[in-house]
Amino acid sequence: MRLFKLRKHATVRGYIHDWLEPDDVDQFNWMTAAIVLLVVASLISLAIETEAVRADTPMPAWVLEDIRLFNQVVVYIFAFEFLLRFWAEGENPRHRGVVGRLRFLASPLAITDILAFLPELLIMLFVPQEEGAWLAAARALRLFRLLKLARYVPAFSIVGNALKRAGAPLVAALCVAAAQVYLAALMLYFIEGEAKPEAFGSVTRALWWSMVTLTTVGYGDVYPETVLGRIAAGLVAVAGVGIVAMPTGILASAFAEEFRVLQERREQKARDAAKTDG
Amino acid sequence: MRLFKLRKHATVRGYIHDWLEPDDVDQFNWMTAAIVLLVVASLISLAIETEAVRADTPMPAWVLEDIRLFNQVVVYIFAFEFLLRFWAEGENPRHRGVVGRLRFLASPLAITDILAFLPELLIMLFVPQEEGAWLAAARALRLFRLLKLARYVPAFSIVGNALKRAGAPLVAALCVAAAQVYLAALMLYFIEGEAKPEAFGSVTRALWWSMVTLTTVGYGDVYPETVLGRIAAGLVAVAGVGIVAMPTGILASAFAEEFRVLQERREQKARDAAKTDG
Amino acid sequence: MRLFKLRKHATVRGYIHDWLEPDDVDQFNWMTAAIVLLVVASLISLAIETEAVRADTPMPAWVLEDIRLFNQVVVYIFAFEFLLRFWAEGENPRHRGVVGRLRFLASPLAITDILAFLPELLIMLFVPQEEGAWLAAARALRLFRLLKLARYVPAFSIVGNALKRAGAPLVAALCVAAAQVYLAALMLYFIEGEAKPEAFGSVTRALWWSMVTLTTVGYGDVYPETVLGRIAAGLVAVAGVGIVAMPTGILASAFAEEFRVLQERREQKARDAAKTDG
Amino acid sequence: MRLFKLRKHATVRGYIHDWLEPDDVDQFNWMTAAIVLLVVASLISLAIETEAVRADTPMPAWVLEDIRLFNQVVVYIFAFEFLLRFWAEGENPRHRGVVGRLRFLASPLAITDILAFLPELLIMLFVPQEEGAWLAAARALRLFRLLKLARYVPAFSIVGNALKRAGAPLVAALCVAAAQVYLAALMLYFIEGEAKPEAFGSVTRALWWSMVTLTTVGYGDVYPETVLGRIAAGLVAVAGVGIVAMPTGILASAFAEEFRVLQERREQKARDAAKTDG
Repeated sequence: MRLFKLRKHATVRGYIHDWLEPDDVDQFNWMTAAIVLLVVASLISLAIETEAVRADTPMPAWVLEDIRLFNQVVVYIFAFEFLLRFWAEGENPRHRGVVGRLRFLASPLAITDILAFLPELLIMLFVPQEEGAWLAAARALRLFRLLKLARYVPAFSIVGNALKRAGAPLVAALCVAAAQVYLAALMLYFIEGEAKPEAFGSVTRALWWSMVTLTTVGYGDVYPETVLGRIAAGLVAVAGVGIVAMPTGILASAFAEEFRVLQERREQKARDAAKTDG
Repeated sequence: MRLFKLRKHATVRGYIHDWLEPDDVDQFNWMTAAIVLLVVASLISLAIETEAVRADTPMPAWVLEDIRLFNQVVVYIFAFEFLLRFWAEGENPRHRGVVGRLRFLASPLAITDILAFLPELLIMLFVPQEEGAWLAAARALRLFRLLKLARYVPAFSIVGNALKRAGAPLVAALCVAAAQVYLAALMLYFIEGEAKPEAFGSVTRALWWSMVTLTTVGYGDVYPETVLGRIAAGLVAVAGVGIVAMPTGILASAFAEEFRVLQERREQKARDAAKTDG
Repeated sequence: MRLFKLRKHATVRGYIHDWLEPDDVDQFNWMTAAIVLLVVASLISLAIETEAVRADTPMPAWVLEDIRLFNQVVVYIFAFEFLLRFWAEGENPRHRGVVGRLRFLASPLAITDILAFLPELLIMLFVPQEEGAWLAAARALRLFRLLKLARYVPAFSIVGNALKRAGAPLVAALCVAAAQVYLAALMLYFIEGEAKPEAFGSVTRALWWSMVTLTTVGYGDVYPETVLGRIAAGLVAVAGVGIVAMPTGILASAFAEEFRVLQERREQKARDAAKTDG
Repeated sequence: MRLFKLRKHATVRGYIHDWLEPDDVDQFNWMTAAIVLLVVASLISLAIETEAVRADTPMPAWVLEDIRLFNQVVVYIFAFEFLLRFWAEGENPRHRGVVGRLRFLASPLAITDILAFLPELLIMLFVPQEEGAWLAAARALRLFRLLKLARYVPAFSIVGNALKRAGAPLVAALCVAAAQVYLAALMLYFIEGEAKPEAFGSVTRALWWSMVTLTTVGYGDVYPETVLGRIAAGLVAVAGVGIVAMPTGILASAFAEEFRVLQERREQKARDAAKTDG
């Protein structure tokens, strides 16, 4: 796809580095797409594996076998990708030489990449019998593959920037929400504690109801039944709308600002390009 | 209604073409209204038909008969509308002649129109006994009538444009949401898997809980019951507010931008009109 | 409160007219407050009355008696208010004389006011025994008192203007939502119709599930149980977020625009006032 | 942390006053952090105490003992903090002398601080046997510690300002929501009252359903079952989206405005600083 760009690079390593670490987030080559697909597939296979492993699930044995095989392949691919990246990182002046490589190994991106394959690789190579406990632990570490996604899907950066922009007020809204949850639990504890002790008999118990109600999830496992309790719960539910409305309002304006900045940057780029051409 | 416009067109076909395909989305003639009403009525009748067809529903037989009759009429009307449109399309230079007509037939709009009547027409004409399987398949194709709506209701274009504008960040927000759903399921699988194996015994099972909770639907068929599980679920529910807040925020700013552009275009039009008059 | 303004008016009628119909929405006199309180109290008493009327409710008889008495007083007050308004309306040039008064009687505001007291007044005066059916009908008409609120609480106009501004796209969003609800019902009908016929056996039945899920209410009386049904329901629930997000986004930008316009008008007023003083 | 600032103050009291009442909300010293942590810990311990106090909870006795001890320490710390603040307030010209101190004691902040420790301190000192009723009352007053949070976490002021800015329309939206809740209850009372008397037999009963549905909580303890009732409930649920959307839209634009103002103020500050330096 971007083969024509090879001329820009003096060496094959330079080409591979540029290919693994495109400097423009808008670029999306097939390499990136392949890794994203592999991560998604390995997360889905992890979910299916936890199901297939169970004795009470009517699933043919080969499913589990195939998933294990697929997972081994993924581990080798990610190991190979990491080695390639480790070698190509020499193009980056900050990561040149032994000290530079150590600095690279200590970077969060490298650690993520390592945790995404190394634990399982070690177990695959050195633990002869498949011991459940080790496997479960290694499996949990597959979660780090989720973090690989964040790096490869460029649109994540818009969401990340907007969250950063919303920062302090978003935290404040969460504090207000937490205070609301606590207050609601305390109120229902005083009102309904006598009538429904198993659900509202203590603040800790009432907190479960309060969280489920204020986030408008409403499972229906606990709810007040006295008249006063229902009036209080109704007011709490209405106040719960504010819990949803505040972060939404904050995020809405943060995204609006983020879009405006992106738009300006794009226009600036267009003007610069026009100047260079002119 | 727009009869006075006939003078603009040299031929009857030209008039009919303009009538079927108004170039200004703000126009809404009775032809459009009639088709929208027919589509809505045929969708409602489809819903009632699936009910009337059932043996356990106490509904008089003539309801089903009338719905079938109504549906046949709708099929003929849509067939006639398509033929009219096919003939009138000769006004469009791109669709003139045999090649042009074939190009028209291959356009998404024409395919939608054809799928909205042809399968049922063929069954009505050539399948003598009403065979259940064929009918069910043809009935499912009535869904394409929904797509006819999108063309005729002009306000849809505002929604469509805003969705396009929100594009990349909306997809990113959906990816973040998917990751959140997965993480929540994994967490509850580790915490509650032992205590409630039928609901949280595997990641796939926990995913059902996680989707129902994070979208704040909260059916209440599954929920954690251990203390740790409830604390985790509470945090997940609070995080679920973000799943609603992010796309809302993104769409809010996209719509604001869309409104601003519409307003500007309207003002530009007014200025142009003033110039032409002046 | 506004007694000092009496000098502005040549007659008592003029003063009363200005008092009943303040020309500035920001004014809020005790007359307005009293009517708002009466309306709210009469709506609450209606609710309690429907409870007290029941044989299975443990409520003392005097509650019902007192509510009936209170309601009669309210009917007379509203009758008096209407007569006062009818008389004072002579100050309005458009409503002067017999023809003007008839024109006033035909206005929506006057009709609302009449329906808020006349039916119950007639029954109170001319139906000797309290007949249940007549009373129930008259009681239902008390709803028109809700409309009186809209006139007296000035902030309603901001909400009304924003809704008008959001107009077309809001309708489009509702159409998209309706289409989504229909599609979800159709999908679950095909997928779960066999497994849970009482809940998904027809599109009409599935529509109940689909509405409850897409609005994220989620009562939990019906939900899919097959694997495919749950996957579909999960996707539907995620799409349901959009149903909430679109109107919210539209309303958010409409309110933002409304606030901006209000702000400008206030600044304009301040400038005008400064000019007049200068 | 801010020890270098001591030079600014002539006395130790001046230093302590500035330390307790930083004039810049962006400042966050370890004293503030410690009080915030103490408040949060004492609220959590209150929740656990209500649980530990119960006979049916399997919790070791020392938990309750430790919580009581912790709470006594917190009471003494808050008492000491208040005395320190009372003494240091002499730095404030408005609170100097006996009259000034009395004025300080009557201020909301001082009352909050007093209610956060005095009732429990008095009981600890003067009620020899731990009487349940007195303790429960004193415990409830611990809620005032929540208000201490509002003063110390600076981001709360952004949320507070945005709420003030949204003021009138937010109240209007709440009124519209209340009217919607009432209307929905009345509608379902007429439609479902006969079929499900225990849930919809009176407007007061239907109000519970209506609040739970319109806030999209949806416990699932009550829902309509007749065809007409379900259609009405579906429409109510869809209208409920508006109840969430309106306040969200209002808050979104209020926060956007608040952010804009903050941004301007920051830029103004930067310009002022540049001028002073230049």
